[in-house]
Amino acid sequence: MNKVVRKIKRPDAEVVKILETLGTATISEAQGRRGLLNPYMRPIYPAARVCGPAITALCQPGDNMMIHAAIEVSQPGDVMVVAVTSDSTDGYFGELLGTSLQAHGVKGLILDAGCRDVTELTAMDFPVWSKCISAQGTVKETPGSVNIAVVCANQLVRPGDVIMADIDGVVVVPRETAAAVAKAGLDRVAKEEKTRARLKTGELGMNFNGIREKLAALGVVYIDEE
Amino acid sequence: MNKVVRKIKRPDAEVVKILETLGTATISEAQGRRGLLNPYMRPIYPAARVCGPAITALCQPGDNMMIHAAIEVSQPGDVMVVAVTSDSTDGYFGELLGTSLQAHGVKGLILDAGCRDVTELTAMDFPVWSKCISAQGTVKETPGSVNIAVVCANQLVRPGDVIMADIDGVVVVPRETAAAVAKAGLDRVAKEEKTRARLKTGELGMNFNGIREKLAALGVVYIDEE
Amino acid sequence: MNKVVRKIKRPDAEVVKILETLGTATISEAQGRRGLLNPYMRPIYPAARVCGPAITALCQPGDNMMIHAAIEVSQPGDVMVVAVTSDSTDGYFGELLGTSLQAHGVKGLILDAGCRDVTELTAMDFPVWSKCISAQGTVKETPGSVNIAVVCANQLVRPGDVIMADIDGVVVVPRETAAAVAKAGLDRVAKEEKTRARLKTGELGMNFNGIREKLAALGVVYIDEE
Amino acid sequence: MNKVVRKIKRPDAEVVKILETLGTATISEAQGRRGLLNPYMRPIYPAARVCGPAITALCQPGDNMMIHAAIEVSQPGDVMVVAVTSDSTDGYFGELLGTSLQAHGVKGLILDAGCRDVTELTAMDFPVWSKCISAQGTVKETPGSVNIAVVCANQLVRPGDVIMADIDGVVVVPRETAAAVAKAGLDRVAKEEKTRARLKTGELGMNFNGIREKLAALGVVYIDEE
Amino acid sequence: MNKVVRKIKRPDAEVVKILETLGTATISEAQGRRGLLNPYMRPIYPAARVCGPAITALCQPGDNMMIHAAIEVSQPGDVMVVAVTSDSTDGYFGELLGTSLQAHGVKGLILDAGCRDVTELTAMDFPVWSKCISAQGTVKETPGSVNIAVVCANQLVRPGDVIMADIDGVVVVPRETAAAVAKAGLDRVAKEEKTRARLKTGELGMNFNGIREKLAALGVVYIDEE
Amino acid sequence: MNKVVRKIKRPDAEVVKILETLGTATISEAQGRRGLLNPYMRPIYPAARVCGPAITALCQPGDNMMIHAAIEVSQPGDVMVVAVTSDSTDGYFGELLGTSLQAHGVKGLILDAGCRDVTELTAMDFPVWSKCISAQGTVKETPGSVNIAVVCANQLVRPGDVIMADIDGVVVVPRETAAAVAKAGLDRVAKEEKTRARLKTGELGMNFNGIREKLAALGVVYIDEE
Repeated sequence: MNKVVRKIKRPDAEVVKILETLGTATISEAQGRRGLLNPYMRPIYPAARVCGPAITALCQPGDNMMIHAAIEVSQPGDVMVVAVTSDSTDGYFGELLGTSLQAHGVKGLILDAGCRDVTELTAMDFPVWSKCISAQGTVKETPGSVNIAVVCANQLVRPGDVIMADIDGVVVVPRETAAAVAKAGLDRVAKEEKTRARLKTGELGMNFNGIREKLAALGVVYIDEE
Repeated sequence: MNKVVRKIKRPDAEVVKILETLGTATISEAQGRRGLLNPYMRPIYPAARVCGPAITALCQPGDNMMIHAAIEVSQPGDVMVVAVTSDSTDGYFGELLGTSLQAHGVKGLILDAGCRDVTELTAMDFPVWSKCISAQGTVKETPGSVNIAVVCANQLVRPGDVIMADIDGVVVVPRETAAAVAKAGLDRVAKEEKTRARLKTGELGMNFNGIREKLAALGVVYIDEE
Repeated sequence: MNKVVRKIKRPDAEVVKILETLGTATISEAQGRRGLLNPYMRPIYPAARVCGPAITALCQPGDNMMIHAAIEVSQPGDVMVVAVTSDSTDGYFGELLGTSLQAHGVKGLILDAGCRDVTELTAMDFPVWSKCISAQGTVKETPGSVNIAVVCANQLVRPGDVIMADIDGVVVVPRETAAAVAKAGLDRVAKEEKTRARLKTGELGMNFNGIREKLAALGVVYIDEE
Repeated sequence: MNKVVRKIKRPDAEVVKILETLGTATISEAQGRRGLLNPYMRPIYPAARVCGPAITALCQPGDNMMIHAAIEVSQPGDVMVVAVTSDSTDGYFGELLGTSLQAHGVKGLILDAGCRDVTELTAMDFPVWSKCISAQGTVKETPGSVNIAVVCANQLVRPGDVIMADIDGVVVVPRETAAAVAKAGLDRVAKEEKTRARLKTGELGMNFNGIREKLAALGVVYIDEE
Repeated sequence: MNKVVRKIKRPDAEVVKILETLGTATISEAQGRRGLLNPYMRPIYPAARVCGPAITALCQPGDNMMIHAAIEVSQPGDVMVVAVTSDSTDGYFGELLGTSLQAHGVKGLILDAGCRDVTELTAMDFPVWSKCISAQGTVKETPGSVNIAVVCANQLVRPGDVIMADIDGVVVVPRETAAAVAKAGLDRVAKEEKTRARLKTGELGMNFNGIREKLAALGVVYIDEE
Repeated sequence: MNKVVRKIKRPDAEVVKILETLGTATISEAQGRRGLLNPYMRPIYPAARVCGPAITALCQPGDNMMIHAAIEVSQPGDVMVVAVTSDSTDGYFGELLGTSLQAHGVKGLILDAGCRDVTELTAMDFPVWSKCISAQGTVKETPGSVNIAVVCANQLVRPGDVIMADIDGVVVVPRETAAAVAKAGLDRVAKEEKTRARLKTGELGMNFNGIREKLAALGVVYIDEE
């Protein structure tokens, strides 16, 4: 039942580049407020920012064996996504595994459990998003799978989906819709640029985005003083 | 039932200046350990520090419409306080709204929900205290109110109350007692200055604050070794 | 029933020095993944790092009296460990107590409750690991004990045990086994140094640590594509 | 600063009777989805159900002194609401206090902390809604206030407001709007009775409440199969 | 982008019947400890127990519109699974919707949010598993989808998968493997029946399941006394 | 390093009998509000109530091997206490192990993790206190220890200590002080009986326990109305 899938379909590299410029919040909006992992996923350092195709590993409780197995099927530019079969705060990942992933060109890790060796990983600039930080180690005894669809922090991630992660969190973009989301995101950025310029002058958003009319229609009353 | 109140009574500007020097912990002590918002409220960057009169917005779940409406009634120096009618981790606030608030002179935001665009808000030096960081966006469809009394992170905040927020958390000072609290805080600072000088020399606090006597009275036994 | 124990057995100073170089994660592994405090314990600033013999204080809810009492029995180089008799997020510790501890040479604090004055403690470089940050103060009315065995963040800590704390968390090493753990840790570091060098070249860990064989034995199937 | 207020304005007894028949969910809807305490508040037994005017007590951490003080100012039919000045899971209330409250005709307790003696309180049929169950006791040393406005489980409760609590949670109704809410609730019940009768026959709500049209307007597509 | 899918493939009815006899724990074991929803999902009454094909609804924050839309495409025997696009404790479901679901033969509800009208739903014997109980209502304004794959309480659920829920929690069985899991579960039950008979006589499991040998091999030492 | 200790010192049987009559809350008070396990420990059914000497097992994450090993060294009347080396919600214990424990006369289980087969365990009247309910199973591969001192739900439990557990939670009484605690508890019960009788007549506790005087001394003001 457990398996390692060697080859996966990866998204278009140009699309990944665009998505990386957009960031988590814009991407999430561009795909209809879908795809965000639970906000308990936090970067181990504030400047962490990464975008790339997902390779996935499903691990058993207190066991990081399948992270080791996943390295072999990774390609430079990938982002590894690790799900666990039950809630855990243990430290499944540290600096040695980070060294190995970095040597293979993997750009970052999304881990629905704990991370350790934070000082070293920060110095190496290997970004990790995790549920917590914990020095509690794991074993390498129980098998799971690599490159199957997994649920990580309440979101479905399939191998080859695009992962964007930054200080605002982690979002997954299905490979099939990545190009459309990238385009929608660019449109959004262009539109926001204009809005920002108007807001900077002190213009009120509610005067040009229809909120004033909505408030009136919804019966919100303005009074001078209570 | 929903309303926007345009004018509120604000606290004395000199009092706000003094409170800003005191900080959250001292103010909280000076008013009898009252007024602290729940400690899940954290600043999005460590140097965040702000003090000013509260303008308040009450939002519906997944809807940030009333933040837009609150900007119009703000004044330079205000701190916006946003409460929501049910528990939410969504990202009600980001960089565009931050730009607008900053353009109107609002000094910071206290938000009982999620915040996003943390990189941009940090670069702009617009401080936010929030329950979490989340890229999950909201809509602008359901009406709430502006400048009514709200409960934010388990504390009552009324428009015109003073909000002090720093790395230790967020405290609210009722407008009516702000001057008295500022005075009590200054007294406390002066007293602590003396205590600090004595402690720095290695003098034991328990020798000059009555704890040694209390311990004896309460039957605590000293033994050399177990 | 409550007592203050003046003299405790401390671990060998050379052993403490070695343990300090190893860090939390290595020590935890070296003693068989034992001794880590719950991962909710976090440092108030990222560079915090400390190692030393534990002096312990057991406090009552909302009362920090026994921290005051513990200072007198501390020695330079100690690390104070504070447990509370019921769950609390209040701020039991701030800058004044930090000044006093620092004056007595205490190197840091492990606190199963809230900490405040984080800006000042960071400026003083007095490291604290705590459950949360909260400006909510405490009183000094109810007695507890000093230098008895306490449970702090789900771990047993006895006076004189070694505490190592860094960005990965907090670990306790029983005094009796500290030398053996230090030795096992040094061995582990030496071994990891070699592993790290191999991983840096891109060599796969699963090729030299037996995982490939285990996966096969456990029936994990390799397939090219789904 | 701490005070005990002896006399409070209570709501109309007839209005309380009507609200009791409506229950928490209907009342909450009837006042515009406002007034619900945080859902962590749970009854100690499933059949617990109570409605009455609030008398309030504000307690310090680990101290239940003000519950004792509040009994004296209670009247038969009241519901006691206890807030604490910081997060606590301690057991502020047990069977002895329950005996005293029951002797004075108080109908139930809303407690933003822990409750104990659950077996005895259930046998006495004295209902309590609390954050948790905990046998951890408290002291009677630190003063708070009685019959002031408090924030309990994230809602403002003023003395004399109406509290309705049942298995769905706890809701507060401001005294001033209680009659209007009771009327709106009765209307709602009448309307729901008709809806229920139609739904029981298998009629689809979306066919008579406009949802089908809304879905079409919002662009939701119906497809037969994927 | 939002859609309602009318027809789904359902699992074999005989297989569902067998799975219902097995219960959550046995099914979870029979499919390799996979498929359990997060343990925060609890039944609203202890005797709740249900098994059937999943029909799914994806709802927006604070909006239960798609539960209404899902009823029309349900069939008798189905179990409805409701996911929400962001964390919410609001009460998306109550007695009126329960009446409608029951009229259409839907056997139960799995809801990754709050449930209300617990007294009425219990009296109707309509079982719900939810994250919490909350009287906080929702609106019917924002569209989602029906019968698409959803992530509910950290598990992927596709329309037509089998849902088994009882007091131990909720497990999802992919439609394709349901028959195999049912068979494996029956085997397990038969085997456990024999084990149970032996254990009842006081025989030690470690004497017939190989644990004694494993402990010896792993170096666990037996000592008489410390 | 891992070991199984065969013989432990058990407390006096008469003392255990007395403690069982007292219950968790009274025992906790009688030993100075010490010894309560974290309130997240809840019984799987309300009538669960047990008292007896602790036998302890320390388990590794996701592994219940040592529960099997602990049965052999149990005696009729014991209560098993299971700690795990890292946070876990998995279901370490179910009906088969319950059958075995019951066959050996073990009266109940305290488990700092998840429990499953709740329906069957309830029918067998085998009481369990656990952190949660979860059907997620475990393996039997990694060794731990039996009858060593463990930390369970933030309390130290040594083999032979007395465990009392009921609906109010779980308390541990050190073997050495059990007789003194039992005596203090009986005194407390006698005293409370008198207090209860007075309170039932409507007499105010604050009139005979000194609270009225304390309130006055602490400056609490009585006012008639606000």
